[in-house]
Amino acid sequence: MRLIGPKEIEDIALGAALLGAGGGGDPYIGKLMALGAVKECGPVRLIDPDEVPDEQLCMPIAMMGAPTVLNEKAVNGSEYQEIIRMIEDGMDNKVYAIMPIEAGGVNSMLPIVAAARLGLPLVDVDGMGRAFPELQHVTFTIGGMHATPMALVDEKGNTNYMTTITNKWAERIGRVICMECGGSVSIALYTMTGKMMKEFGVHGIVTRSENLGRAIRHIKDCPEGMTPEEYFLDYTGGHYLFKGKISDVLREVRNGFNFGRVKLEGIGAEKGRQAYVEFQNENLCCVVDGQIKATVPDMICLVDTETFIPVPTDALKYGKRVMVVGLECFHLWRTEAGIDLAGPRYFGLETDYIPVEERCK
Amino acid sequence: MRLIGPKEIEDIALGAALLGAGGGGDPYIGKLMALGAVKECGPVRLIDPDEVPDEQLCMPIAMMGAPTVLNEKAVNGSEYQEIIRMIEDGMDNKVYAIMPIEAGGVNSMLPIVAAARLGLPLVDVDGMGRAFPELQHVTFTIGGMHATPMALVDEKGNTNYMTTITNKWAERIGRVICMECGGSVSIALYTMTGKMMKEFGVHGIVTRSENLGRAIRHIKDCPEGMTPEEYFLDYTGGHYLFKGKISDVLREVRNGFNFGRVKLEGIGAEKGRQAYVEFQNENLCCVVDGQIKATVPDMICLVDTETFIPVPTDALKYGKRVMVVGLECFHLWRTEAGIDLAGPRYFGLETDYIPVEERCK
Repeated sequence: MRLIGPKEIEDIALGAALLGAGGGGDPYIGKLMALGAVKECGPVRLIDPDEVPDEQLCMPIAMMGAPTVLNEKAVNGSEYQEIIRMIEDGMDNKVYAIMPIEAGGVNSMLPIVAAARLGLPLVDVDGMGRAFPELQHVTFTIGGMHATPMALVDEKGNTNYMTTITNKWAERIGRVICMECGGSVSIALYTMTGKMMKEFGVHGIVTRSENLGRAIRHIKDCPEGMTPEEYFLDYTGGHYLFKGKISDVLREVRNGFNFGRVKLEGIGAEKGRQAYVEFQNENLCCVVDGQIKATVPDMICLVDTETFIPVPTDALKYGKRVMVVGLECFHLWRTEAGIDLAGPRYFGLETDYIPVEERCK
Repeated sequence: MRLIGPKEIEDIALGAALLGAGGGGDPYIGKLMALGAVKECGPVRLIDPDEVPDEQLCMPIAMMGAPTVLNEKAVNGSEYQEIIRMIEDGMDNKVYAIMPIEAGGVNSMLPIVAAARLGLPLVDVDGMGRAFPELQHVTFTIGGMHATPMALVDEKGNTNYMTTITNKWAERIGRVICMECGGSVSIALYTMTGKMMKEFGVHGIVTRSENLGRAIRHIKDCPEGMTPEEYFLDYTGGHYLFKGKISDVLREVRNGFNFGRVKLEGIGAEKGRQAYVEFQNENLCCVVDGQIKATVPDMICLVDTETFIPVPTDALKYGKRVMVVGLECFHLWRTEAGIDLAGPRYFGLETDYIPVEERCK
């Protein structure tokens, strides 16, 4: 157990923005909420997965919605009391700890807000090791777990408690409610036993986010003999994919998602080459001069070429210079079930999944 | 208390189709389900509103959705166990009796199915005295009551329990779930005390439906000196609006509703005149030669000119000969709050509400 206060929150937010692979919403708003919550309620206890007894319940907290909307439509703060009441009543059991379900943007922060406000510990685990656009895209689906009961509240005070026959139905019904309620809602789903959390969760993800964030923040203090870029790639385990200037951003909010494509004109050694990255909330694939360099479920991250600060899809702007980096996904995503669930073909890309490290050879 | 068996069900279904004012779905499917339920579980006890103690709970049961879909997508029979469990758990109280919320088509029948299958009495009351397309269109909204908690299940087994800040939000969120689940779902909403039910409900509506149905069935045995048409108008308290042959039906399923317009060419004494009726699930207005003859909240009913059997909007067909009849709505609909809630302007008609009996003078 260790405490998460303002300093840790800064680093987690920054690192989670990288793991968010373009999605999860700008962590800035989430960070302000997390800072406010720990200021008001005190630091949050971060516990290891092994500190949760097998039979105790962990409740993931997240926002559902298009990242562009998340930035404009905050939570009102009382959502989590209502959510935990619904889940505890519905499951007839107490919640032992809060956990994140995805390590991306605002969804790395809101579980901290919930843990602080509810006085519960936060588990150092998630269900993706990154961010994904749809509710069923979690390792716990691979583990055969139900997404529901799902509790859903909006900032106006509408509440919803649902059970569905499949996790895809939780996504479908949750998504239409989310859209009708203005494009973003607070949710708890996949409430699970400690045993399930330990078996299928991505352990240590909060700490990983924090370490990544700290490294980015101190990028200029990189070890002698290394450029900041080399240090960044070494530290993150990232595979260099491309470096360029944003020449075009196509963006569309459709069915409650941010869809789009960002085009890049090569700079430096890449001069004369062209690349694009497609996204659905998160980046889906990176194509350089017509050749696929990386696809989901691996993470495709755009970072500023100077500061190495991650650039989420909703912050893409003409003229910005970015490096595109591929990060290897959690091993469960590389199983047949993982690729079926969140591989390139699920997102409409006409290619098999080939791990980013092989594509980059 | 009296028993509702197969004979009563036949008459209620027929009469409710008239009060449905074109909507509520073809009662045929609902009737088959009600007949099956009483055959299997025994007749249903119909009780007067006054037989319900003030503090006991009455749970309205209905289907939500476009009538054209209701006809093709039945209930699986186990929905009501799930619905009552959600409502009783959520309200931490037992349900004393089932009641219809609208007296139209399939929604006059499903409360009988639920009462039979749950072994509960059915109250001789509803919240409209007719059918209306949206959830907030009930006398209980005029009485200041909340539509939620609302329990919603689909035939696949997805369940949903919601509370909303307004009844319009229950409609909005319920409607998108309904649409996502295929266009129709089973719901319980406005679960209320006996006191509220007695104060704002439309008393005796099941019996009225039954009497209307019996009269239509025996229309040929009308009293001497009266034509069947005269007897029909006299018995129903209906105002004659038009008689014609259907010359065109415009139909659109949009946002989960059946919208449309039926055009009529005058026959008999009406030869050379033209009329149309607009609908949103239910008939909204009747216009004859450019002059409005009736609007919501009064009931506009199309009946076969020979059999006087009501013709719901989803059964409108080219060439069919119909009489259009206006029935006076329940008095609460004629209050300012009632007209705001379900008057012509709510449905986009550019006219004030004028009672049908005045328009027909």
